[in-house]
Amino acid sequence: MDYRIEKDTMGEIKVPSDRLWGAQTQRSLQNFKIGGERMPIEVVYAMAIVKKASAFANRKLGVLDEEKAGVIAEAVDEILSGKWDDEFPLVVWQTGSGTQTNMNVNEVVARRANQILESRGSATRVHPNDDVNRSQSSNDTFPAAMHIAGVIAVEDVLLPALDVLNGTLKEKAEKFADLVKIGRTHLQDATPITFGQEISGWYSMLDNTRAMLVQSVDTMRELALGGTAVGTGLNAHPDYAVAVAEEVTALTGKKFITAKNKFHSLTSHDQMVYTHGAIKALAANLMKIANDVRWLASGPRCGIGEITIPENEPGSSIMPGKVNPTQSEAMTMAVCQVIGNDAAIGMAASQGNFELNVFKPVILYNFIQSVRLMADSMISFNDNCAVGIEPNEAVIKRNLEQSLMLVTALNPHIGYENAAAIAKNAHKQGLTLKESAIASGLLTSEQFDQWVRPENMIGKR
Amino acid sequence: MDYRIEKDTMGEIKVPSDRLWGAQTQRSLQNFKIGGERMPIEVVYAMAIVKKASAFANRKLGVLDEEKAGVIAEAVDEILSGKWDDEFPLVVWQTGSGTQTNMNVNEVVARRANQILESRGSATRVHPNDDVNRSQSSNDTFPAAMHIAGVIAVEDVLLPALDVLNGTLKEKAEKFADLVKIGRTHLQDATPITFGQEISGWYSMLDNTRAMLVQSVDTMRELALGGTAVGTGLNAHPDYAVAVAEEVTALTGKKFITAKNKFHSLTSHDQMVYTHGAIKALAANLMKIANDVRWLASGPRCGIGEITIPENEPGSSIMPGKVNPTQSEAMTMAVCQVIGNDAAIGMAASQGNFELNVFKPVILYNFIQSVRLMADSMISFNDNCAVGIEPNEAVIKRNLEQSLMLVTALNPHIGYENAAAIAKNAHKQGLTLKESAIASGLLTSEQFDQWVRPENMIGKR
Amino acid sequence: MDYRIEKDTMGEIKVPSDRLWGAQTQRSLQNFKIGGERMPIEVVYAMAIVKKASAFANRKLGVLDEEKAGVIAEAVDEILSGKWDDEFPLVVWQTGSGTQTNMNVNEVVARRANQILESRGSATRVHPNDDVNRSQSSNDTFPAAMHIAGVIAVEDVLLPALDVLNGTLKEKAEKFADLVKIGRTHLQDATPITFGQEISGWYSMLDNTRAMLVQSVDTMRELALGGTAVGTGLNAHPDYAVAVAEEVTALTGKKFITAKNKFHSLTSHDQMVYTHGAIKALAANLMKIANDVRWLASGPRCGIGEITIPENEPGSSIMPGKVNPTQSEAMTMAVCQVIGNDAAIGMAASQGNFELNVFKPVILYNFIQSVRLMADSMISFNDNCAVGIEPNEAVIKRNLEQSLMLVTALNPHIGYENAAAIAKNAHKQGLTLKESAIASGLLTSEQFDQWVRPENMIGKR
Amino acid sequence: MDYRIEKDTMGEIKVPSDRLWGAQTQRSLQNFKIGGERMPIEVVYAMAIVKKASAFANRKLGVLDEEKAGVIAEAVDEILSGKWDDEFPLVVWQTGSGTQTNMNVNEVVARRANQILESRGSATRVHPNDDVNRSQSSNDTFPAAMHIAGVIAVEDVLLPALDVLNGTLKEKAEKFADLVKIGRTHLQDATPITFGQEISGWYSMLDNTRAMLVQSVDTMRELALGGTAVGTGLNAHPDYAVAVAEEVTALTGKKFITAKNKFHSLTSHDQMVYTHGAIKALAANLMKIANDVRWLASGPRCGIGEITIPENEPGSSIMPGKVNPTQSEAMTMAVCQVIGNDAAIGMAASQGNFELNVFKPVILYNFIQSVRLMADSMISFNDNCAVGIEPNEAVIKRNLEQSLMLVTALNPHIGYENAAAIAKNAHKQGLTLKESAIASGLLTSEQFDQWVRPENMIGKR
Repeated sequence: MDYRIEKDTMGEIKVPSDRLWGAQTQRSLQNFKIGGERMPIEVVYAMAIVKKASAFANRKLGVLDEEKAGVIAEAVDEILSGKWDDEFPLVVWQTGSGTQTNMNVNEVVARRANQILESRGSATRVHPNDDVNRSQSSNDTFPAAMHIAGVIAVEDVLLPALDVLNGTLKEKAEKFADLVKIGRTHLQDATPITFGQEISGWYSMLDNTRAMLVQSVDTMRELALGGTAVGTGLNAHPDYAVAVAEEVTALTGKKFITAKNKFHSLTSHDQMVYTHGAIKALAANLMKIANDVRWLASGPRCGIGEITIPENEPGSSIMPGKVNPTQSEAMTMAVCQVIGNDAAIGMAASQGNFELNVFKPVILYNFIQSVRLMADSMISFNDNCAVGIEPNEAVIKRNLEQSLMLVTALNPHIGYENAAAIAKNAHKQGLTLKESAIASGLLTSEQFDQWVRPENMIGKR
Repeated sequence: MDYRIEKDTMGEIKVPSDRLWGAQTQRSLQNFKIGGERMPIEVVYAMAIVKKASAFANRKLGVLDEEKAGVIAEAVDEILSGKWDDEFPLVVWQTGSGTQTNMNVNEVVARRANQILESRGSATRVHPNDDVNRSQSSNDTFPAAMHIAGVIAVEDVLLPALDVLNGTLKEKAEKFADLVKIGRTHLQDATPITFGQEISGWYSMLDNTRAMLVQSVDTMRELALGGTAVGTGLNAHPDYAVAVAEEVTALTGKKFITAKNKFHSLTSHDQMVYTHGAIKALAANLMKIANDVRWLASGPRCGIGEITIPENEPGSSIMPGKVNPTQSEAMTMAVCQVIGNDAAIGMAASQGNFELNVFKPVILYNFIQSVRLMADSMISFNDNCAVGIEPNEAVIKRNLEQSLMLVTALNPHIGYENAAAIAKNAHKQGLTLKESAIASGLLTSEQFDQWVRPENMIGKR
Repeated sequence: MDYRIEKDTMGEIKVPSDRLWGAQTQRSLQNFKIGGERMPIEVVYAMAIVKKASAFANRKLGVLDEEKAGVIAEAVDEILSGKWDDEFPLVVWQTGSGTQTNMNVNEVVARRANQILESRGSATRVHPNDDVNRSQSSNDTFPAAMHIAGVIAVEDVLLPALDVLNGTLKEKAEKFADLVKIGRTHLQDATPITFGQEISGWYSMLDNTRAMLVQSVDTMRELALGGTAVGTGLNAHPDYAVAVAEEVTALTGKKFITAKNKFHSLTSHDQMVYTHGAIKALAANLMKIANDVRWLASGPRCGIGEITIPENEPGSSIMPGKVNPTQSEAMTMAVCQVIGNDAAIGMAASQGNFELNVFKPVILYNFIQSVRLMADSMISFNDNCAVGIEPNEAVIKRNLEQSLMLVTALNPHIGYENAAAIAKNAHKQGLTLKESAIASGLLTSEQFDQWVRPENMIGKR
Repeated sequence: MDYRIEKDTMGEIKVPSDRLWGAQTQRSLQNFKIGGERMPIEVVYAMAIVKKASAFANRKLGVLDEEKAGVIAEAVDEILSGKWDDEFPLVVWQTGSGTQTNMNVNEVVARRANQILESRGSATRVHPNDDVNRSQSSNDTFPAAMHIAGVIAVEDVLLPALDVLNGTLKEKAEKFADLVKIGRTHLQDATPITFGQEISGWYSMLDNTRAMLVQSVDTMRELALGGTAVGTGLNAHPDYAVAVAEEVTALTGKKFITAKNKFHSLTSHDQMVYTHGAIKALAANLMKIANDVRWLASGPRCGIGEITIPENEPGSSIMPGKVNPTQSEAMTMAVCQVIGNDAAIGMAASQGNFELNVFKPVILYNFIQSVRLMADSMISFNDNCAVGIEPNEAVIKRNLEQSLMLVTALNPHIGYENAAAIAKNAHKQGLTLKESAIASGLLTSEQFDQWVRPENMIGKR
């Protein structure tokens, strides 16, 4: 392989000659051969946004000249286009402040900017630290990038996916608003509900956790930028903090503000713990929805079998109707991961000391993974399962008729004692309620049909 | 022991004759000899409030007469006075809908009401199911009681405790606003901050998580009441849901509303998962604060030793100054518990099926324990530690002087290269920065004192 | 209230005059008003055993006289009889080394010993530190007591409970060894198994985790005693470590040995993390068993309904056959708690520093709670549910007959293609396999009965 | 792109023409666009081993011919060489039985085998289901592959990495066996220990958890193979189970046996929960070790500073001696991940139903990630940090001298009261113990040096 020699304060180091990264990235690559989990590209992009926003803020404040700011912005735009993704090879398991990823971005931006400058014949050169990282420290850029990446992930990835599934569920609830079926509590037959009502429980779960996500992600709009190394803002222009937050807002189209207290920003990740709590609430809800779907679709003959779901893969070659609920399975596995991630985040967030929490990359990694898994599994579940949910009306009707719970409808007509006796007899003899009622001689078949109407037992809707 | 015979639909059962509870409570006692964790009294009280609110709502809607409603209210008031705490002996590990605790409350209220009626010579009798539980089911009363208990716990127990500690920290931050000390990142010496700034990071943690608690607990104001057994509201007056929420609001002085979707209320506990996420964020922050305190107080001679904390217990009989940071230890242990509780709650909340989640008691138990532990440990930490935190100014000053980080202040005067050389020499020779600076011949002692002023490196405050 | 004045190195303090505890216990009571969770009595007893064993070891080594050793043993025996449980009022949330519980035991033993001595007219007096705590430190006694309490809890509480449930399951498996039923994978109908085979999956879960418990608890036989304050054994006789482990072995009838490395014993609780991992494995298995039971018992009409379970409480007054699976619910809730406890223990165990881990009480508390919950819920589940599990043979038979999976038995006789066509037709038309087979004209009713024998599809047993 | 048409029971599907995978892999790719986490290559290799072992077992039992068995083995060997890694593109979030990865392996083996056969001019063709998957089902091959991958990962990746770090620590302990330093408990100065003793606490942590890993991984040697779809072994030769376990043993050089109960093997993953519990115990220990290292190296001037660690990256350009403990940070972050993974595994393992647990891929994914992270971070920590740990003897000596804890050594000479008074005076006046002792007039400088010898306070070693 071809190398070039790069230098930093520790001396010389060989870097593959076609790579945009520099000495510090190379050192990190060599010193942290741990796992294979790359720093999520989302935080690399967010860091690139920080660099562009800083260049603009510094230009505005007169501490970076026009040419440098411009070319930094150009290099960042290339990064954001996805063109240089391979230039960010570092793993999550590095310095706990994310310094090496900050330097990776600084180095790539600087080198790419210098290539552009060179190609234009300019004699100007951009320095990774003095220019790209100007007014910044890893300690404030990384938490800022965490928040930017997190807000974008929740707003642009998670919520849209949630809305897709929610839309499908609301359509289904509407469509089956009048389909009466047996309710179940403790897994036991209970009084009737409509399938639409049952589904409304599902979409209300999504509605509720959507509101929680919107509410909690708002706390992540605070940016640490301007705090620099320890929170005091040493080496940054006093107006930088506010200016750079405005630039980030302009660049992302999302509101960001400078953090009220920068010492907090460097040491606490309460906002991510809290927002991930909303993601966990969503996950717990999705577990319930996915489980309901697979249980309702269980069978085809020996389960509950009240719905059918799309068949996406071969189940059994000889066994028609055996449709494994694989989308539910993928989703519930993703839920387990999110619940594990939540434990990792909570612990990591608790481990700050003095002016810095050095567990930032692991927090970000888990947060982004959770967003991806929940978003992707909702889309996948929606497209490959939820849209195709159909009630098995024959089974639903049979269950409803077989159920003994409907006996309560007879109370006003023949009294509690008689009604109970009819139900007991039905249970003992294995009769339907109607059969047992007629056998009791207390009412006729016609009266039964008139009085026992599940559709009157489902409340106002 | 003396027994009386009670009956329910399963037959007769012996109940200790001096007990207010009835058959179903007794059966639960016998069938669930699991652990020793009683159902938290908070949820018993909340359930009692539900009973009184229901009696009033039912009276208003004309489905319960004045006398019964009145005496139910009287019995509930006695329970809320704490007089009958021993009459609620059931454990957390019972039916997952909390049915048995609902029945325990129904039975105690009815029996006590009947004692009162009897003492007044009234012939009226209150029935646990028909009167006390009227318009209700365990499936909607228990989640309603969970929310009532949870909101009260957060608002009346957790937030006030947080405010106490926060008040102390803000006083301390104010008091030591100008005390400059060394900052530390990665546990390594960094540029200076004031002790007030460091403490401001702590109180900002409390401020932030306070806002999260206020925001998230708001989602718990929704009451399941009116949903009855499966969410359809069968057997409840159509106006009961709204009416009872108003009564609960009136009785507690806290806003509660009827849940938008009762199917959700019975099956999802996303609101408690979410709110507990805020409690976990608080816990993670407290871990950091308690750790900072114990590390800053470490020593007395061979640690960091920048602060002293109150001595509350004998440390070592012969070793003066060895003050074990026991309040930090109690608090950080409580944090571990809260993080464990969060895992239990998340898992339990994910396990609903169809029209009911039957993991309600374990969710409530963990939620209430977390509130208690965080509230109590904040008060204990405040009273027995935080109020007595004092800076050890001699150590702080020595550390600041010894630090080599101050060298950055020389850059504008003698240039980066010279400054770095001075620092390197100091590190190599074990000199103070000042000694090395003077030895360099580049500046005088007076110049050093004039130029190297940590108080100028701490940013605008 | 009546008080007496006690003294320690911090000065005087008032102690209720009828209490056996002394100054340090009293201080802890006042300084740690956190939660209500008392230090588990199991660790108090284990600590008492440590005191008796130490007295005997010290007597043997000539550093404690006969009279003192004897009376310490007498006091300990009284404690172990349960007589003085109320004298150990301290909570879990105290100093993280458990010092205050160590002192509580020292103080109660000493005071009670002195009462005995006094009653005998002896002039000898036992000192809580110099005599009861001789050769010890909180830092080695508390981890030793954790191990003693943990081993006793696992061996004498958890394993016997597991064996009870296991015995029932093995009986049931034997009893229903030939009862063929439908198997289910992905909740979908699959090829047949016997009910006995299905139950064998359950008891194998218990067998396997039993072996894990036996294996892992063995690592907890190491005692920290002899390490004293930092692990070096300062102030203990060089032979004390081995001698006291022998005494503990003699007193408990369980093998304990002195830890290979005392520095490890004070700082790591890997043995409890590991053993609790086995408890968690058991918990995960119990979740599956309890879930299978409640799903198999679901119905009575609209669920799977292949088994019936005992009815222990009123379900619905009018609805016969609605038996809520409350024992499963209690057990699965307990499982969630154990999984939460495991997270708390893991985090706490990771937080040691230098010569001590100060998260000992929270580890012990969670460990003991998990043991109690798993043991009690297994016994409760056994007595109130498992022993009464009965197959609903009519439903099992109907499901088996309805299933289309049996079609594979026709392959050898009529070929795969024909068999598949029969199944497809049955699924499409809603026929039984037999009906569809006969309708195909490819085989007779007699041939079907002869060829399609589920009992031949269940493997060798 | 170029496609070919593949068929399965659901019909035709386009597959990129240069890919070895077939229809079912392609469907999974399209149906599960979730996350980016590929099924770990470890389990793909393990599955390939299962295929080769099955081919050999089936050949031995006469149900697969020589030519097919041979070419299947050839194809598997190519896979194991790493040559075809890109042919296994499926993600973790698929069907919960791992069916699609089983089919991916079946398809690639079959296609590659057929390419080989074709190149040899043979007319034989290997079928993915009938030949490669013969005697198997996803339901038994996937759990078998999980165990094979898990055992290999623990034995060949985790334990060797642990041994490397352990070796370094033991060398260091030996080297610094006589270097006396201050001990610390509760972060407070305590009695002396040697640095070697302190390190022995670390390596004992590794020794202990090594033994736990060896013990627990033994439970994973059981293979589900032979159980097929529901555990009964339908469609497998009765001797297949034992034969294939022998083949797996031969191929891996590691002992594997057929599981005692196949119903257990398909439904429970207690062995992986248990073994991961040992990994978590290791993680908790590594957290403590990594934390001790970074705290001992804290400073350079204002921390504890008793050791130096290698400088691997630029810390501060101007601040010599600021060596950020980045290896500790990477390791402690990895620990947080493992603790999160443990929660995910425990929950997933609890969610089995009837004859199958469909959370297998998420369990395996977390298990393998934990092994990789712990192994890699131990190697990285060893090579880039532990090997270069050096005591800062000047600081260690100063701390020891400054400490007041040494006063206990004066007790035998001047009595407890006098000794305590000297210590108190030293604390109050800020003197060293020696200064205070001499000032007391009770002993001479020479006597002090003679009596106060930390090296006599460190126990027998």
